[in-house]
Amino acid sequence: MLPFANDYSRGAHPKVLQALVDTNMDAQPGYGQDKYTKQAAQKIQAACQLPDAEVFFISGGLQTNQVVISNLLDGDEGVLAADSGHINFHEAGSIEYTGHKVLTIPGVEGKVTAANLQAYLDDWKADENHGQMVAPGIVYISNATEIGTLYNKQELAALSQVCHANHLPLFMDGARLGYALMSPENDLSLPDIAKYCDVFYIGGTKVGALAGEAVVFTKHNVPKRFPTKFKRQGAMLAKGRLIGVQFIALFTDNLYFKISQHAIDLAMKLKQALKNKGYQLLIDSPTNQQFIVVDNDQLAALKKRVALSFWENIDSTHTAIRLVTSWSTTEDEVDALIALL
Amino acid sequence: MLPFANDYSRGAHPKVLQALVDTNMDAQPGYGQDKYTKQAAQKIQAACQLPDAEVFFISGGLQTNQVVISNLLDGDEGVLAADSGHINFHEAGSIEYTGHKVLTIPGVEGKVTAANLQAYLDDWKADENHGQMVAPGIVYISNATEIGTLYNKQELAALSQVCHANHLPLFMDGARLGYALMSPENDLSLPDIAKYCDVFYIGGTKVGALAGEAVVFTKHNVPKRFPTKFKRQGAMLAKGRLIGVQFIALFTDNLYFKISQHAIDLAMKLKQALKNKGYQLLIDSPTNQQFIVVDNDQLAALKKRVALSFWENIDSTHTAIRLVTSWSTTEDEVDALIALL
Amino acid sequence: MLPFANDYSRGAHPKVLQALVDTNMDAQPGYGQDKYTKQAAQKIQAACQLPDAEVFFISGGLQTNQVVISNLLDGDEGVLAADSGHINFHEAGSIEYTGHKVLTIPGVEGKVTAANLQAYLDDWKADENHGQMVAPGIVYISNATEIGTLYNKQELAALSQVCHANHLPLFMDGARLGYALMSPENDLSLPDIAKYCDVFYIGGTKVGALAGEAVVFTKHNVPKRFPTKFKRQGAMLAKGRLIGVQFIALFTDNLYFKISQHAIDLAMKLKQALKNKGYQLLIDSPTNQQFIVVDNDQLAALKKRVALSFWENIDSTHTAIRLVTSWSTTEDEVDALIALL
Amino acid sequence: MLPFANDYSRGAHPKVLQALVDTNMDAQPGYGQDKYTKQAAQKIQAACQLPDAEVFFISGGLQTNQVVISNLLDGDEGVLAADSGHINFHEAGSIEYTGHKVLTIPGVEGKVTAANLQAYLDDWKADENHGQMVAPGIVYISNATEIGTLYNKQELAALSQVCHANHLPLFMDGARLGYALMSPENDLSLPDIAKYCDVFYIGGTKVGALAGEAVVFTKHNVPKRFPTKFKRQGAMLAKGRLIGVQFIALFTDNLYFKISQHAIDLAMKLKQALKNKGYQLLIDSPTNQQFIVVDNDQLAALKKRVALSFWENIDSTHTAIRLVTSWSTTEDEVDALIALL
Repeated sequence: MLPFANDYSRGAHPKVLQALVDTNMDAQPGYGQDKYTKQAAQKIQAACQLPDAEVFFISGGLQTNQVVISNLLDGDEGVLAADSGHINFHEAGSIEYTGHKVLTIPGVEGKVTAANLQAYLDDWKADENHGQMVAPGIVYISNATEIGTLYNKQELAALSQVCHANHLPLFMDGARLGYALMSPENDLSLPDIAKYCDVFYIGGTKVGALAGEAVVFTKHNVPKRFPTKFKRQGAMLAKGRLIGVQFIALFTDNLYFKISQHAIDLAMKLKQALKNKGYQLLIDSPTNQQFIVVDNDQLAALKKRVALSFWENIDSTHTAIRLVTSWSTTEDEVDALIALL
Repeated sequence: MLPFANDYSRGAHPKVLQALVDTNMDAQPGYGQDKYTKQAAQKIQAACQLPDAEVFFISGGLQTNQVVISNLLDGDEGVLAADSGHINFHEAGSIEYTGHKVLTIPGVEGKVTAANLQAYLDDWKADENHGQMVAPGIVYISNATEIGTLYNKQELAALSQVCHANHLPLFMDGARLGYALMSPENDLSLPDIAKYCDVFYIGGTKVGALAGEAVVFTKHNVPKRFPTKFKRQGAMLAKGRLIGVQFIALFTDNLYFKISQHAIDLAMKLKQALKNKGYQLLIDSPTNQQFIVVDNDQLAALKKRVALSFWENIDSTHTAIRLVTSWSTTEDEVDALIALL
Repeated sequence: MLPFANDYSRGAHPKVLQALVDTNMDAQPGYGQDKYTKQAAQKIQAACQLPDAEVFFISGGLQTNQVVISNLLDGDEGVLAADSGHINFHEAGSIEYTGHKVLTIPGVEGKVTAANLQAYLDDWKADENHGQMVAPGIVYISNATEIGTLYNKQELAALSQVCHANHLPLFMDGARLGYALMSPENDLSLPDIAKYCDVFYIGGTKVGALAGEAVVFTKHNVPKRFPTKFKRQGAMLAKGRLIGVQFIALFTDNLYFKISQHAIDLAMKLKQALKNKGYQLLIDSPTNQQFIVVDNDQLAALKKRVALSFWENIDSTHTAIRLVTSWSTTEDEVDALIALL
Repeated sequence: MLPFANDYSRGAHPKVLQALVDTNMDAQPGYGQDKYTKQAAQKIQAACQLPDAEVFFISGGLQTNQVVISNLLDGDEGVLAADSGHINFHEAGSIEYTGHKVLTIPGVEGKVTAANLQAYLDDWKADENHGQMVAPGIVYISNATEIGTLYNKQELAALSQVCHANHLPLFMDGARLGYALMSPENDLSLPDIAKYCDVFYIGGTKVGALAGEAVVFTKHNVPKRFPTKFKRQGAMLAKGRLIGVQFIALFTDNLYFKISQHAIDLAMKLKQALKNKGYQLLIDSPTNQQFIVVDNDQLAALKKRVALSFWENIDSTHTAIRLVTSWSTTEDEVDALIALL
């Protein structure tokens, strides 16, 4: 099977895995107190050009969203997200599990815009009954978004300004941040993101790690006793080193960015081929996820040879599917896929 | 001020209050074990023509929704409601507080239709990723709805059928059930509701009681140790008699229905007057809540004389307002309001 | 049956009920925005000699404990209580329902002592693993305690000092505060309590009201948007007036204190009679709850004539029971009980 | 530093790590749908001699306890545990986070005994107020216990019988199950545990894996849609293979048991040396955790050369410490430690 279902179907990048092998027998303290976790944090501070960023490592993306959002919200607050946001649909109600509502804003290409956020907040303030409603408490975005689109610098700066004018922290889910930053359409740097966002995470699971995301608080805004808080939520690994070691490898010699670039190059080759072959793009994505509409007979045939993702039913005879490249996709695999399409 | 802001601005119907006075010094067990609570339950079983209905009394509507929904949902399930549903907006996130998501269905005149529910369930089943999504676990409706509209018997029967075919309990919020049942457009009886719904509540707070709602489980489907469960949620009064005594009074000599009829008669008189005067009805409501659009200058003037409810901003110069009659509204008050409009 | 099971077996004191009758038809805003709620708050500020106390009304004691504690705790914090504390046993896990642990301290006559609290805190700080434990976040006491005992001024001052030295708010559950303050052994005033505690409540349900407790925040320490927060928890009555009106009556002409005094006088008469008859007091209680040990044959006989409370099994032939007086107990009832004992 | 602080200070057993390397580039579905997870489950079914056991993999012990307990409890139920139970102290309130109380039973050498459990249940049933209390819903034990002691077959059988007679599932935390099973004092087999327990887990994190625990439901008693439920709680890894691959390695050629035996052999050597040198054993532990009391001056000296764990303060000049061996401890390290003692 050609592996285009997602960007987490293989293990770790060989250099990441080698780092685990190399450090394996070094005895270290548990629960994130090991030297590797500290070094990884320093690597990320450097990459963000923010020496006083506070960095924590969590094992998965859903868990990171859950832990960050719930600990930054006050009791009666909810999280604002685009209606297509990952936390609103595909995380099994993990935000509500923590007692908080996901408040939705109409997305524009999957993004929360400054204008739509401002409109939401204006409506909320103007509603004389808002004391009986969930208060907006944090803004959640993802970059790349759930549908592979990107925030540009102007959009992120404008959104950040609205957030801060309204005392709302801005949180970026960066599960696919590497793929976003390496897109030909991207104009944001990691320091830009650290500047505009109050907290964000750099995704490892989908970008070359076995598991692990690096959460970065950028404004001296870490919740008090945060490790105890996320331990209580089940999100602390005994062997925190597992993630620390991997992030050291990912942030050595720009590995994170190089392997993201590789995935993007292949995604752009695939996208061009899809266009050439006349496929309807469901979304014009500049990142590693490509969405097309296929008829169901073709889909059935493709599924015998290609691992791909169902996206949504279009009509009784057509389905939208997702094809994803990753750090591990080979050019041969892309060529084979193109030949099948 | 003329009191048209809501249907809970005065105390209790005089007969209800008198019942509290009459029983005041009778010593009774606490926590709903008193004889009045038992008698009230019997009155409601009789009114529903369902002798084995299981009846509980809770002090308010939000609390009842919270307690019923959360105890009927399995861990990963959510509650389906119309997008305009009360629990989705004006209950301060009380469902999410219990760890569950409100899943919204496009409402038709504020109602969940059998067709829209079926479409939601079909989509959910067809989505190959639904294992990563909140599962539908109960259907919440209100009658009258948040915007004063009614389910007719055909609609409720059809909805009930879809619910039961999909093993979903159907829960009706009857905060304004008296006003629904007495509407000229209503064709449902209390026994009909007991037949089609798995659980519903008969609202007291808005229909003549100081506080209290009667929850009716109709299908031998009470959660195990339900009183302990809702006690744990803070919803059990030490003096459960407070609600029991009131419901005895409300269900003696058809008081509940007579005082509801009174409110509906006045609402219809008001509605006709509003039409005669050329007001734009925001919604064509057959119950005790009437919604009109007024210009903001007129609104400012009205507010000096009338207690009314902001509903929503229409545009920069117009606002939708709500005018509500109740068991306690007098014909003089309605006439005075009409004179001001 | 002679009513000695508890202090909430009858309705409201006649003057309280009359106040409800007198104000019944006055239309007022809902959700605690009515004038009676405001007046009641002022009455309580005056009684506490604390004009800037912030006062809220909640319908029951368990709910008040739940709402106050959960909104004053940070995510990873728990509430410290005596091991015999009401919240630890008889509230059905209502604190844990909000996600927080009850941390227990060995009680001394049902009380948290300054020394035992300090010892707990010292141990916690000295434990090198305390980052993996629930952090102490608030101290819960009740006065009178679960077993009828009292804090004296010296004890409360000492406890308050330890709390404040450790940045822990001190919360007093005053479900039976009237009975505590009127005990012959009491040396605390309401202003003392307002001085030493950060938040406390004045119980109405057990002292003459149908339902309702007055929560007093004494140090400008109300959680932000507290009403929205407790609405979300199901604890806000639509007709907030119900509680406000009753507290106005209770705090007019010292009614609250007079009716508490009445209950204490009868309890002391009962206690003396129990001693004279040679009963073993389980606890030497100076308030309205008296605890004795009886043999099970006598208990069976008593239960035919007296409503009383099971307290605990002592051995196979003896049971501890609780006998409670209240604002509504009559001298005839006490005499009749004594004659039976 | 000599690594005796815990059993999770190093990475993975070399064979476990090699298995990750060998399978690294094989593309597999995510979220536990991969072939390795299935194979690992079969290995565990075989080891338990229970072909229809239902097996799931979770990344850590605290998270496993949280996920299993919360999904097996009904709303108003709590989990029974020994007062010294891990979930009661060192998991940061993770059970309470899910809304449930930890109900404690006096432990005997860290164990819940059948007699003490029966006594708890008898008291609970005899308490006439138990409807206002948390109901017992599941029994949690750990083997080896928090203090290194073991359940023998007779004890476990008796406990299981009391559980089942009372309709309480019995859950064994097996974070250190390998070390328990290889103890010279053990008489339980994995099939015995599968027989007596309703659910248990086989710990990987402390026994040779980077992360991961295998949860085994033995009585066709998996909660409905369990994977969605634990995903919602943040406990599902995208690359479920990470754990599956490791457990295949651990359960190939008895690796799990061999490496556990190694740790036990070294622990027994250490224990004998401690006895020979006259140390006071805090607990007589037959497993890989040894507890001794040292004076604080010696402790300060030891800490310069040995990574060890603080256990508890004994008095102002003595401290109890824990010394732990693991799969990765070498005989040289034990000898070096003994030389220092």
